[in-house]
Amino acid sequence: MSIHDDYDRIFKALAHAVRRQILDDLKDQPLTTGTLCEHFPELDRCTVMQHLKVLEDAGLIIAERRGRERWNHLNAMPIHDIHDRWIGPHAAAATARLARFKQAVEAD
Amino acid sequence: MSIHDDYDRIFKALAHAVRRQILDDLKDQPLTTGTLCEHFPELDRCTVMQHLKVLEDAGLIIAERRGRERWNHLNAMPIHDIHDRWIGPHAAAATARLARFKQAVEAD
Repeated sequence: MSIHDDYDRIFKALAHAVRRQILDDLKDQPLTTGTLCEHFPELDRCTVMQHLKVLEDAGLIIAERRGRERWNHLNAMPIHDIHDRWIGPHAAAATARLARFKQAVEAD
Repeated sequence: MSIHDDYDRIFKALAHAVRRQILDDLKDQPLTTGTLCEHFPELDRCTVMQHLKVLEDAGLIIAERRGRERWNHLNAMPIHDIHDRWIGPHAAAATARLARFKQAVEAD
């Protein structure tokens, strides 16, 4: 599998608001598929599971089976790689300062 | 425009290998549209300009006109925002350490 395919998969996975919301929900803790389904009462279980599969195929979540439960963990490495590719360690501090400046201006 | 629309636009823009390559080319310096077209001899000028428009609409490049030239600058803020959304300042150091560890293991 080429790096191009990997990135295609990652960005296509992230190009959907529900999948981004799932990653938001997993940011602070892993969750079971059942709990995630409860977070999206407007979607049926199959649809949520399809979104989870897209995220797993892209390497953005890692699934862990415990008995009958499936625990979904956010895998932040692809996000880290995106940042490194276009910002990198050198520019990170400057970009972070700029982001804080922008927030301060917008808060005024 | 909602934040959902912004993120949709950003990830759809990034989900194409040519557009990612354009951002790679702009990482270290701004380039004119003419120079970028020369980087993609297999594509006609119109196609390259369409890709630039998608990137500009997503806020990933900022165009600056100087006379008849158009200089394209990488705007790293959306990339920073992606990183902040799912990694954030707290986890950044740990994720960077993990990435270095992964590289060291893979290099062995």
